[in-house]
Amino acid sequence: MYCMLKLASLFVAIAVSHGWLFSDSGKKLNVLEEISLWPLPQKFQSSAVSFQLNANSFQIVHAKESSAGPSCSLLQDAFRRYFEYIFGEEVRKQDKSRKKAFNSDLVELQVWISSADPECEGYPNLQSDESYELSVDQPSAVLKAPNVWGALRGLETFSQLIYEDDYGANNINKTVISDFPRFAHRGVLLDTSRHYLPLKVILSNLEAMAINKFNVFHWHIVDDSSFPFLSRTFPELSQKGAYHPFTHVYTPSDVKKVIEFARMRGIRVIPEFDTPGHTQSWGNGQKDLLTPCYSGSTPSGTFGPVNPILNSTYEFMAQFFKEISTVFPDAYVHLGGDEVDFSCWKSNPDIQRFMEQQSFGTDYSKLESFYIQRLLDIVTTTKKGYMVWQEVFDNGVKLKEDTVVEVWIGNKMEEELQNVTRAGFTTILSAPWYLDWISYGQDWQRYYKVEPLSFPGTDEQKKLVIGGEACLWGEYVDATNLTPRLWPRASAVAERLWSDAKVTDLGNAYERLAQHRCRMVKRGIPAEPLFVGHCRHEYNGP
Amino acid sequence: MYCMLKLASLFVAIAVSHGWLFSDSGKKLNVLEEISLWPLPQKFQSSAVSFQLNANSFQIVHAKESSAGPSCSLLQDAFRRYFEYIFGEEVRKQDKSRKKAFNSDLVELQVWISSADPECEGYPNLQSDESYELSVDQPSAVLKAPNVWGALRGLETFSQLIYEDDYGANNINKTVISDFPRFAHRGVLLDTSRHYLPLKVILSNLEAMAINKFNVFHWHIVDDSSFPFLSRTFPELSQKGAYHPFTHVYTPSDVKKVIEFARMRGIRVIPEFDTPGHTQSWGNGQKDLLTPCYSGSTPSGTFGPVNPILNSTYEFMAQFFKEISTVFPDAYVHLGGDEVDFSCWKSNPDIQRFMEQQSFGTDYSKLESFYIQRLLDIVTTTKKGYMVWQEVFDNGVKLKEDTVVEVWIGNKMEEELQNVTRAGFTTILSAPWYLDWISYGQDWQRYYKVEPLSFPGTDEQKKLVIGGEACLWGEYVDATNLTPRLWPRASAVAERLWSDAKVTDLGNAYERLAQHRCRMVKRGIPAEPLFVGHCRHEYNGP
Repeated sequence: MYCMLKLASLFVAIAVSHGWLFSDSGKKLNVLEEISLWPLPQKFQSSAVSFQLNANSFQIVHAKESSAGPSCSLLQDAFRRYFEYIFGEEVRKQDKSRKKAFNSDLVELQVWISSADPECEGYPNLQSDESYELSVDQPSAVLKAPNVWGALRGLETFSQLIYEDDYGANNINKTVISDFPRFAHRGVLLDTSRHYLPLKVILSNLEAMAINKFNVFHWHIVDDSSFPFLSRTFPELSQKGAYHPFTHVYTPSDVKKVIEFARMRGIRVIPEFDTPGHTQSWGNGQKDLLTPCYSGSTPSGTFGPVNPILNSTYEFMAQFFKEISTVFPDAYVHLGGDEVDFSCWKSNPDIQRFMEQQSFGTDYSKLESFYIQRLLDIVTTTKKGYMVWQEVFDNGVKLKEDTVVEVWIGNKMEEELQNVTRAGFTTILSAPWYLDWISYGQDWQRYYKVEPLSFPGTDEQKKLVIGGEACLWGEYVDATNLTPRLWPRASAVAERLWSDAKVTDLGNAYERLAQHRCRMVKRGIPAEPLFVGHCRHEYNGP
Repeated sequence: MYCMLKLASLFVAIAVSHGWLFSDSGKKLNVLEEISLWPLPQKFQSSAVSFQLNANSFQIVHAKESSAGPSCSLLQDAFRRYFEYIFGEEVRKQDKSRKKAFNSDLVELQVWISSADPECEGYPNLQSDESYELSVDQPSAVLKAPNVWGALRGLETFSQLIYEDDYGANNINKTVISDFPRFAHRGVLLDTSRHYLPLKVILSNLEAMAINKFNVFHWHIVDDSSFPFLSRTFPELSQKGAYHPFTHVYTPSDVKKVIEFARMRGIRVIPEFDTPGHTQSWGNGQKDLLTPCYSGSTPSGTFGPVNPILNSTYEFMAQFFKEISTVFPDAYVHLGGDEVDFSCWKSNPDIQRFMEQQSFGTDYSKLESFYIQRLLDIVTTTKKGYMVWQEVFDNGVKLKEDTVVEVWIGNKMEEELQNVTRAGFTTILSAPWYLDWISYGQDWQRYYKVEPLSFPGTDEQKKLVIGGEACLWGEYVDATNLTPRLWPRASAVAERLWSDAKVTDLGNAYERLAQHRCRMVKRGIPAEPLFVGHCRHEYNGP
């Protein structure tokens, strides 16, 4: 039996002896290298005793003691998915008759949901328990979890324990794992406004997120460039604000598909409808919503942020967010609030007059706060919690206790974390993880090295940091290049947010991540290479 | 009738009025924008008179006067390819009966090969004439070219003239084009050693190259990391030097497929077998080929560059390049010669002794030249010309008159071009076009702005610059991400090497390139976006 840290040092020894250049090659891998878990579990014990898995004899089944059974379609679906990941092509070749297992075979994985309510029909949330315990031994492997969310994470880990030997057979070592996430909010932001992302691309990335144990899809669904969300209440928004009213929109049915696909993988979908800035595309389909900018004393024909001085604005927002609150089941909606440009507001005489009436002087951040405050009150009536970008906090807007403040500005990030948590708000970090900022070489290492709790603060403050997000803004990505640009770079963030804070060895991470990216490739995700090397199964199209 | 420059300024006006952010959106494009030729032809005249093309009535045919006919499979294949590009899905839906054409329809493109030998069975070469003349008018469009190479370029241009109107119909404007390339050597380097590239990926990029009028595939086929080329004479080289001896090799049949696929598109295949450095992978399958490095007075177990002091080395090279000369039909082979690390040679007592015998003192570049000189003589006996990286010239090796020197070092690039051309050698430029060096934003503009002839020199010297290459080294790319990383960034190089030197307007280039990248996407090439926007037909998998 090896403890985790011992295993880690063994990895490093292997990495060094093989030399860096060839380390991602998969040549002559020994068993320890093959067990390339990502993200690394909290507690891990493995022995050299191994069992074979055979597509004709192996099954994933509900344990007798489990509170879930075949009617739990979330689990049934996951069982099938992981069975296919494990046996791949073999599944299709397989004949119908079940074969007698050899003594050395592992014939089943029992999945045991231990709490009274397995949450089969539920949605994951910020409080979901994702812990699980996995024991791989004869005659059965057992995966025990309080509910389906932990079971999903454990199934992924189980599938990662399996390695192909030189004859193509599937093996697994005797193993005991006890695992849980370090942070509760582990997100990926995708932006469907700068470029429209076909549903296929979104679903494929949700799949990759599950493989990396991410649990939040932050859907930056609309922005200046386009408004692809088809609102039932305000269909003109996408009719006139999308790149194309039919081919470049997300219909209610599309949105449902995304939410259900995510739910089946334990992923929350938090939509972002960013206001009052970043709203150019809203203006096409909603008259008087945006502020008319002035050139001297006449309207210039261009528009600025949402117009905060009209009652119609708030009436619109109330109706709009009422719809949003029913379309998206998650308890949170992201309200944006970043990067408001004041120049248009400043140019508009009606706004100037309003500023005077309210005694705001020339401090337009007060106007911004005025707007946001009213918006937050509106959203509160929909029974949703909200997330906001850090500016909303910085401007002193009064926030509900359960607000999540997203820290995104790289400059003075630690100071911001201090301030937000000192004020008692929960926070998530995305500043160090803007994956759209590409550069030459292995930038995943930079993402990996980030320690979210390195800022000065009390234990209470640290507890308020509930996670982080890898953000891939859409200026330069669409269906052609998004997936390889995101993976495995986002995997670095995934491990930082899941694994123990002490898991920081870059050499060990490189070895595991190189294998993990080949695993993603084998599963049809075009995850790009870390460096020179190869995968046993190269990418051959989706 | 507009001259080209006038047209260019019209493009710019449109770009500005639409605003940069939305310019790649394809919304409300007017006809001039739809004609997004890339690379821009040398002479171009267009009128607003337009004709429709209908899959049921339009044909690409051999002109009566043409020296080529249906037996010219290169052209037949190209006719079918471009017909499918033009009509896409429509081709499959089309019923068999030919429909009567309307008066406004364009019913045929006649392809007229004017020289006695159309070169249907030949290979393109450095002297190939790629010029063509295209006239689009009623009753027929006519594409006239001296031989098939120009016809291929003209067919691509013809297909680019066609634009879809709001009803999905294909239209083309009355047009006269006279076109030829500014430079004869317009290459793309792909590296199949750092990562193995499946055949599918290579072929798909050859297709993209043809769409961009590139005409040389510089195949950096082997290097330190792996040796995927299956040599019939020395099968051990790939058997032991490839990442995998069966799945990660290019068999003789694979190589033939690449060469023929390229030939059908007017693309030369120049293989590079880089020595004496960059040869680690050669050592696995060829005993005594590499120099044993020493640690003090004993061999360290590691190996350096090719061993230049053994006769067996030259015997091996003679046999090896004899095979290469028959496998690859092009008149040139690239012999590398870059980045030779002297430390191993310096450590080896046998090498030291040899240096003394030859009175080389401690100047190991003399030893390098000694090796290269003998190699060049060997290759000369195979009747091939050779290309080399600039170091070979810099070290004063005696080169054959027809040698092509490739300038790749960014630092002092202009000085190097001066020196090489002053010495009377032809040269190609790749230094400014190392596309593996990615960065955030629109780096295509940097590639586009390069003027290859901006160095000080006589007209005679300038004539010796025969072109350039976009190089995508393989450290960080494989089948998962290569294609979107290469396109449309390499397209910037394509236009620089084909179009007139005066074609330098970035705004106009942006407009055309955004459309051109959508055209590639429509044709199944996952070319990444330039910036915010959309394509009418988004990428939906290969």
